[in-house]
Amino acid sequence: MEFKISKELIHQIEELITAKDDRELNVLLADIHFADIAEILDELDFDDATYIFKLLDSDKTAEILLELEDDARENILKRLSPKEIAEELDELETNDAADIIAELSQEKKEEVIQELEDVEHAKDIVDLLRYKEDTAGGLMHKELVKVNENWNVLTCVKEMRIQAEHVSRVHSIYVVDDEDRLKGRLSLKDLLTTSTKTPISEVYISKLNWVKVDAEDVEVARIMQKYDLEAIPVVDELGRLVGRITIDDIVDVIKDEADKDYQLAAGISQDVEADDSIIELTKARLPWLVLALLGGFISVRVLGLFEGAMAEHGNLFFFTPLIAAMAGNVGVQSSAIIVQGLANDTLSGSVFNRLLKEISLSLLNGVILAAILFAGSHVLLNVDFTIGIIVTVALISVIVIASLIGTFVPLLLDKFGIDPALATGPFITTSNDICGILIYFSIARWILGF
Amino acid sequence: MEFKISKELIHQIEELITAKDDRELNVLLADIHFADIAEILDELDFDDATYIFKLLDSDKTAEILLELEDDARENILKRLSPKEIAEELDELETNDAADIIAELSQEKKEEVIQELEDVEHAKDIVDLLRYKEDTAGGLMHKELVKVNENWNVLTCVKEMRIQAEHVSRVHSIYVVDDEDRLKGRLSLKDLLTTSTKTPISEVYISKLNWVKVDAEDVEVARIMQKYDLEAIPVVDELGRLVGRITIDDIVDVIKDEADKDYQLAAGISQDVEADDSIIELTKARLPWLVLALLGGFISVRVLGLFEGAMAEHGNLFFFTPLIAAMAGNVGVQSSAIIVQGLANDTLSGSVFNRLLKEISLSLLNGVILAAILFAGSHVLLNVDFTIGIIVTVALISVIVIASLIGTFVPLLLDKFGIDPALATGPFITTSNDICGILIYFSIARWILGF
Repeated sequence: MEFKISKELIHQIEELITAKDDRELNVLLADIHFADIAEILDELDFDDATYIFKLLDSDKTAEILLELEDDARENILKRLSPKEIAEELDELETNDAADIIAELSQEKKEEVIQELEDVEHAKDIVDLLRYKEDTAGGLMHKELVKVNENWNVLTCVKEMRIQAEHVSRVHSIYVVDDEDRLKGRLSLKDLLTTSTKTPISEVYISKLNWVKVDAEDVEVARIMQKYDLEAIPVVDELGRLVGRITIDDIVDVIKDEADKDYQLAAGISQDVEADDSIIELTKARLPWLVLALLGGFISVRVLGLFEGAMAEHGNLFFFTPLIAAMAGNVGVQSSAIIVQGLANDTLSGSVFNRLLKEISLSLLNGVILAAILFAGSHVLLNVDFTIGIIVTVALISVIVIASLIGTFVPLLLDKFGIDPALATGPFITTSNDICGILIYFSIARWILGF
Repeated sequence: MEFKISKELIHQIEELITAKDDRELNVLLADIHFADIAEILDELDFDDATYIFKLLDSDKTAEILLELEDDARENILKRLSPKEIAEELDELETNDAADIIAELSQEKKEEVIQELEDVEHAKDIVDLLRYKEDTAGGLMHKELVKVNENWNVLTCVKEMRIQAEHVSRVHSIYVVDDEDRLKGRLSLKDLLTTSTKTPISEVYISKLNWVKVDAEDVEVARIMQKYDLEAIPVVDELGRLVGRITIDDIVDVIKDEADKDYQLAAGISQDVEADDSIIELTKARLPWLVLALLGGFISVRVLGLFEGAMAEHGNLFFFTPLIAAMAGNVGVQSSAIIVQGLANDTLSGSVFNRLLKEISLSLLNGVILAAILFAGSHVLLNVDFTIGIIVTVALISVIVIASLIGTFVPLLLDKFGIDPALATGPFITTSNDICGILIYFSIARWILGF
């Protein structure tokens, strides 16, 4: 049932644009969902995209604006006058409008705000601009349905009909007192199923979840998931109802957070997509590679320290990549589990217990792997007994150390308010490579005494 | 505003249980949200948990059952009679009930179904058991509000009051014909704002998104995200309305999918948490480590092939970990970007263009990094000029090859219907380690001729 863009369609549209055949274009695009039109505009060059954009009604284009990829939106906005942008924003929910204004240059921002028709709407938007993007205030929108605890169901329903006009999804109706303080909620169902005379104060549910306006977005996401909420009211320091966050905004937060952690674990330092420009991709990838390269320098120096072994025990050096790789892999596994535990807030128990657990876990894994290595080193790699012992002992110790580093570096970062996900990927592999090699050759020197 | 479990609370509850002080327990737990009670039960031993579970009303315990961790739920269900379980299921939405029944042993399953009181509900649950877990059918529930296109708004509202009793969140009202085929939808808002005489056929919106019952869960998630839907109707082969999927079910799908990819990228082969047992964690981690170890064997053999270089050019071996690490990191970056592109369905353009892009991208990165390495190899590592040249050339070629492997292995897997995320993490690092070392020493031999 889903719409799929075809090369033919894109080509047809481009031709209609050059032919300036607006009638045909309108017919062609009439039945296409705005999310799909956004995908089409992403494929067109910016002038063509702007042409289509100006052609369509602002109720449709406003939604398209939200779905466009950043560079397309930026370039289309550049080509629109403040008045044209304001027309789009008048169609949008306050938080979406605020997000778009936030992307504009300072002076254009003011010009656009001047042009906004609906003054109430404009007030709300400007109000939202105050809040940090990654807080409840930055996520919430002003559209919601609220009723006074002193009304009865009938007044409430009347009031709702008016308020609902501006609210795309009602979810629940919030009950406030005369000072606008949040008292509770009503469900549409309750209204459908209670007599019109009943006073609200008798039917509303006073127990409800809410978040403070300065709560972190990931925190809000956790609460809404845990309590399975589709909307949550946002209150200010005085407990007054200032806005509402709906699950669709939270879905994006969850997705972005997961993507971010994933990319950091892979050594990509900013949100990029396969289709971004080579420069963008390099910006995101090169820093971590440079870090890894510098780490590589250290490993070269470390190996240099043990040059003495080369004459007699040269084949020790054959095992360095194996030891380094195992250290890296174990470290990434440990850190990934901790990072997810922190993200989902599922870490319980004391640090000491975690230490014990990680040691026993890595010992168990280490011994099994060392056994395989010891056997393999004779059967497959036919190295002599001593070397076999050395690499085996080294592997166990390296695995234990690596898993401890992988576990506690993220925990430490988190303690200092740094994103623990930074400690996954290249960072952990590089540091574990170095430790691993150092441990391995120290053990070798200690046993062989070179 | 969020509830936090304290050691004291757990302790207090355990004492009340040993004292069998049901009154106190009821008072204590009365105001705690079921999601929080679930967390409490996860902390208790299974007998205590079951005690609390039997103490509370089934309308609350049913919800708790869903929130419990798997092992806690499994063990509590073991301690409940079929009749007791059936009482819980009668309180749940059809899909949640079906999920829990699916976890039961075959004979217990049948016993429980026998005990279900509400026959309609039982029919629906049994019906849902037919569908695969990871399809629209497996996600959907039977609870929804539907009206016949031939009714008018008044009949519709009356009908809704009845149907709404069983539906926790109405979202939109689906319109069907006499054969139960999905025709369109109505929003509650529309009902609130149209006169009661109007026939439904005049007010309903015929354009709506829907999914087939056999659609993949991730596909449903993509569609609901793209079109920003809070609920989507599910139809069978004949277009008949068979169920509905709501956004809260999709949030779990998105979260699980992201977690899975993240864990695979970190070399963890099944969904584990930091607090799982050491055995569980080993099961998830060891397979990938064994793979990496076997890869390590190969790298040892590969290095062995170049033993000849050791006498004269021993310091070549100092650079193997550096080369291997760079190959691994580049490979993971490339594969991660592709895996996310596939997951979000944002990959466009031909394979050839992707090849060109990846080559130029990796060349750009490679040259910059090689420059740093070349400088560093003299300033920091003071190796002689030829070695400097060798590692520099090697680094560039290794980065290009590694990024190509990282890009095309996931694409290939995806083509053959294998999860491309398998190609991230240990798999890609290990294979790139080996290729990297091979390329490096081949270049060395070619230049130095040992």
